[in-house]
Amino acid sequence: MRDPAVDGAVAVFDARLTEILALRRERSRAFSATYEQLWDALERLASGGKKVRPRLLLDAYAALGGTDERAAVDAACAIELLHVALVIHDDVIDRDLVRRGEMNITGRFASEALLRGAPRREAHAWGEASSLLAGDLMLTLAHSVLARLDVDESRRQAVLDIFDDTVFESAAGEHHDVWLSLHLESAAADDVLAMVDQKTAAYSFQAPLTLAAVLAGAPSSLLEELTLIARRIGVIYQLRDDVLGVFGDERETGKSALGDLREGKETLLVSYARADPAWATVEPYFGDEGMSASEGESLRRVIEESGALLFVESLISERCTEVHALIRESHLPAPMVEQLIDLVSTCGTRTS
Amino acid sequence: MRDPAVDGAVAVFDARLTEILALRRERSRAFSATYEQLWDALERLASGGKKVRPRLLLDAYAALGGTDERAAVDAACAIELLHVALVIHDDVIDRDLVRRGEMNITGRFASEALLRGAPRREAHAWGEASSLLAGDLMLTLAHSVLARLDVDESRRQAVLDIFDDTVFESAAGEHHDVWLSLHLESAAADDVLAMVDQKTAAYSFQAPLTLAAVLAGAPSSLLEELTLIARRIGVIYQLRDDVLGVFGDERETGKSALGDLREGKETLLVSYARADPAWATVEPYFGDEGMSASEGESLRRVIEESGALLFVESLISERCTEVHALIRESHLPAPMVEQLIDLVSTCGTRTS
Repeated sequence: MRDPAVDGAVAVFDARLTEILALRRERSRAFSATYEQLWDALERLASGGKKVRPRLLLDAYAALGGTDERAAVDAACAIELLHVALVIHDDVIDRDLVRRGEMNITGRFASEALLRGAPRREAHAWGEASSLLAGDLMLTLAHSVLARLDVDESRRQAVLDIFDDTVFESAAGEHHDVWLSLHLESAAADDVLAMVDQKTAAYSFQAPLTLAAVLAGAPSSLLEELTLIARRIGVIYQLRDDVLGVFGDERETGKSALGDLREGKETLLVSYARADPAWATVEPYFGDEGMSASEGESLRRVIEESGALLFVESLISERCTEVHALIRESHLPAPMVEQLIDLVSTCGTRTS
Repeated sequence: MRDPAVDGAVAVFDARLTEILALRRERSRAFSATYEQLWDALERLASGGKKVRPRLLLDAYAALGGTDERAAVDAACAIELLHVALVIHDDVIDRDLVRRGEMNITGRFASEALLRGAPRREAHAWGEASSLLAGDLMLTLAHSVLARLDVDESRRQAVLDIFDDTVFESAAGEHHDVWLSLHLESAAADDVLAMVDQKTAAYSFQAPLTLAAVLAGAPSSLLEELTLIARRIGVIYQLRDDVLGVFGDERETGKSALGDLREGKETLLVSYARADPAWATVEPYFGDEGMSASEGESLRRVIEESGALLFVESLISERCTEVHALIRESHLPAPMVEQLIDLVSTCGTRTS
């Protein structure tokens, strides 16, 4: 069920995002060749991806009766730029070199330096420095686009509040995630769920939906309903992500199915599996960067046989039913109800 | 020559910065204990330091006849928060653990995790993740404070432009700096000077002075003069910084006098010394993280005997004379002329 007006807005969004980035890339040429390469990489990265968040925002804005396409499109650009910033910095934190099946900025800059004769360690530091600065640039750009929205003062303040809260909460979730991966204290399932909620739900679902609502002038009661629904969808999305991170098909997900296990990512799957006596036999592999494929297979088997996979799958399905009910009982306009029901299904069942 | 009105504004600035940070630290308690520790660390970090940039902004604002103390103080907070963000991310890029003579965020978080039993490598990754997120939070906060200035629309746009350009240019300089440290291509003295100009002059001098001028409603001709002067001062500041990084007194600078040499930082000192045949005898130590104190001493001797130290010192003194003339010939108000002349002397001769 695609709305042609929204498809039009998505095309305008694509063009606007390209324009915003091309302007910076053009300016970067006055600085250094490597800086221009960095902006090239950013332009390519930002033009890829599934554009889930901007589409969500634009769909919601249309469904809520918003008519200022320019403001909605710019907000969609800001939310996509924030996503790119967080993805880049997340890769630095996880020391990843691959994203969406190809080398990320760290990987690309490091390998070029290696080819040109830099020692391995220095080449890697150069790649990481490039990613760190790239993330800073995207974060700044996201904020800059949002701060310049041509809307009345009260909406502008509300929009800035959403952005601040989103970054504040995503950082809290990410920080907690890394902390739990150290395994210095045991994590209750509730802690893991709260972390997941902060890390993903805030910026991927709550921010696009509440930005759309504020810009469309929706009443605050509706904003509260949307916030609650967005958070619930976010947790479903992330639980599915955690399952895909361990049991997904690498060809579909575009990332290694050993990645999360090598990182020692403390997901709900793992926190459940820990209670099984068999966990002790595979625990030494967990979080080991040098883990072999067969060790990964053993870990996966223990997680599955502990009932963790079944547990998380049932939780996902239970949460889907709950949020369906929330959506149906809400005061959201009919097209938005349809849109959100579709979104829940996608989040609950996606394979990539 | 301190203006009591400016001293008053500095006190208001201190209180406002404390208030901005305390509010976030308070909110962080709802997330996780480690997140609250991160905000504690940020509060401590931001309350330290010499506050060179906010003072510069507030002094200039008063000298230019500005009367909206609230706006100037908030702009000063934004510029200090940006400084904190850049310092934190700079330390991540340089893999530093110490700043201003004490452990930085990476060092503090890593050592606590070590004490609690985390393996060395993971503890360090945790420290770095904490710094990376801390920098993102400070960058977001800086932008947020600036985007909410209660000034007319044209000033607001000008202020946002300055902030964007500042981050864009500082990142360009930092990126180029790291690239030159790889030594994959030889750097001409002009390249090194351009990098220095981008990396430091933009955010430390140009941004505070031009923000003050825009907020005080100074004419654009004056803004251009100020920009030119600020850039020149920034280069002097950074050249002195490079000299202190190799020949400074550790007790005064608060950082190791081997740091820059171990990092292989491509300063003007080094690019000059490279032309000396004796350079070949110490080149292997340069950029070696395991460099001993006596190897550092040899490197320092070769740099000094090559004439590089004398060359950079004369350049600093020549640049000071030039910028003095620029300031005296400018159309800046008398108190600002005094202020900038003082600033040039401080930048040219400081020992810490």
